Amino acid sequence: MSDDVRDRVDAALSGFLDRIEGEWPARAPDDVIGVLRDFVLGGGKRLRPAFCCAGWRAAGGPDTGEVIVAAAALELFHAFALIHDDIIDDSDTRRGAPAVHRRLAGRGPVFGRHAALLCGDLCAAWAEQMFHECGLPPDRIAAAHPILARMRTEVIAGQYLDLAAAAGTVADALQVVRLKGARYTVTRPLQIGARLAGGDDTLGDALAAFGDPLGDAFQLRDDVLGVFGDPDVTGKPALDDLREGKPTVLIALTREALPPARRDRFELLLGDPRLDETGAAVLRGIIVATGALSRVERMIGQRRDAALSALEAAPVPDDVRKELSELTISAIDRNH
Amino acid sequence: MSDDVRDRVDAALSGFLDRIEGEWPARAPDDVIGVLRDFVLGGGKRLRPAFCCAGWRAAGGPDTGEVIVAAAALELFHAFALIHDDIIDDSDTRRGAPAVHRRLAGRGPVFGRHAALLCGDLCAAWAEQMFHECGLPPDRIAAAHPILARMRTEVIAGQYLDLAAAAGTVADALQVVRLKGARYTVTRPLQIGARLAGGDDTLGDALAAFGDPLGDAFQLRDDVLGVFGDPDVTGKPALDDLREGKPTVLIALTREALPPARRDRFELLLGDPRLDETGAAVLRGIIVATGALSRVERMIGQRRDAALSALEAAPVPDDVRKELSELTISAIDRNH
Repeated sequence: MSDDVRDRVDAALSGFLDRIEGEWPARAPDDVIGVLRDFVLGGGKRLRPAFCCAGWRAAGGPDTGEVIVAAAALELFHAFALIHDDIIDDSDTRRGAPAVHRRLAGRGPVFGRHAALLCGDLCAAWAEQMFHECGLPPDRIAAAHPILARMRTEVIAGQYLDLAAAAGTVADALQVVRLKGARYTVTRPLQIGARLAGGDDTLGDALAAFGDPLGDAFQLRDDVLGVFGDPDVTGKPALDDLREGKPTVLIALTREALPPARRDRFELLLGDPRLDETGAAVLRGIIVATGALSRVERMIGQRRDAALSALEAAPVPDDVRKELSELTISAIDRNH
Repeated sequence: MSDDVRDRVDAALSGFLDRIEGEWPARAPDDVIGVLRDFVLGGGKRLRPAFCCAGWRAAGGPDTGEVIVAAAALELFHAFALIHDDIIDDSDTRRGAPAVHRRLAGRGPVFGRHAALLCGDLCAAWAEQMFHECGLPPDRIAAAHPILARMRTEVIAGQYLDLAAAAGTVADALQVVRLKGARYTVTRPLQIGARLAGGDDTLGDALAAFGDPLGDAFQLRDDVLGVFGDPDVTGKPALDDLREGKPTVLIALTREALPPARRDRFELLLGDPRLDETGAAVLRGIIVATGALSRVERMIGQRRDAALSALEAAPVPDDVRKELSELTISAIDRNH
């Protein structure tokens, strides 16, 4: 994503939050909007807005401010998803700073969680508001909204499955990847942008053929970085996923391949909230030794190739194809 | 509200949930949609749909199925608000049955809260989806959506204030009443219905002049019933509000009028999670003795009169005036 688009998305978010602050009805004792402004503008890759803008241009949309506002609304929706995820996962940090439920914990952790729950609800409400008030014609917004609605259900369903299937199979983990990763990060934002520009079903299907494997690969990369990434670069503590026992594809593949003799040690360490670096090194060693890491790397490579092939065949302008190809590489071959 | 409208709203909700179930993307191990169907269709006064339909007819809207779907979407939004409220208040029951976080607590109370958090998120997402897919023209929906967005921010802000101002003043309590009660239950649903039918700002203002005092009175009645109501009739345990120490107008007025000699006893009992019937009787005695109960009853009466006067002056058809007048009486002079 170009810095220019990022700056315009951030300016749209900042302007929207200014307006919301002016209309804010409650004499609440906490600076709720300040906390959310810091969180929303404080980091993040802005991938969803980037894909939304790319989808818009794929359908021939001109360079205009309205689509930036609609794209920025997806980032506000993402803030909702992250805030509620962090409550559920009891994460201390996000984007290298305290999670929202920690920022609001001045009156204790329970208050912090409840306040953050409401902050997430506000971000979800504002995302819809911002999307609908982006300034595009009502019939264009009406054409795109069913995809936004579908995306909302998918990502929450994915989170539910993630929560409920805590010791899941590879198939469960792959479904979470598809719902919480691929569809949410890539395919739906692309399709929303395309619909806003008047794109048809054929274009929507072509964008899914590209976006689904790309998004799967993106999420699988995220899972690998969650265990093997450098916390100084990812902004996420390196032990969180292991301490939480997050049922990723990487972990499910490890479990499948684990010799019975090593199984007990693995299950004992995984999900231990007090896991230290030594224990983490043991877990990483097991994950590598079972071949799970190289299998996931192969899966990422296959999906990247599938995405790039689908992109070749997609009915999109050449400059958009070039940009999406670059986005693909940077989303998959990254260290943060 | 006529039984006919209630039946049509429930049929719309049931049909929508059937469709959602068909599209539900996750192989989740819990019957999430079943739990939500039971909760949404299991009770409730359907006040918001009733006011939305009344607002629609106030603006001259014809009898049509589309507005029923839009009105039913407000009920789905209400399910979201109740589910998250019950998590925050740690309520055991709602509408005479277990709260959603209790229904989902098969794998423990923490899982139940997290699962319910996501269920609330789903209801909020589906409410927007149902509203936008009601079948009315996009420009009508676009005209009404800013009021829906405003309502969403108001009710969440009111809940935040409720959470944060736990030992609040009468002014704080009245602001919560206005945001969580009046605007959310009456004024915004009326205005949304009117906008959907093409109503203008003059009508919207007249509906607010009626709806705000009516809604305040409705919420004040709710607070009185929370302390003095018959649990067999309200469907809510009679001690919940007192055990929680809910900072209502009734409680704030009691605190203001409390002689210092009785203050310690009052604060000791109020908010005690193990409060029993004997302690509750003491609290009720104090609330009555300070005159707080009769002051709230007077406030309710004044607001009912103000609502009925505003209704007399409102530019609405006579049959709508008659219906709203009946809704006013039944919303205020009730025992559940």
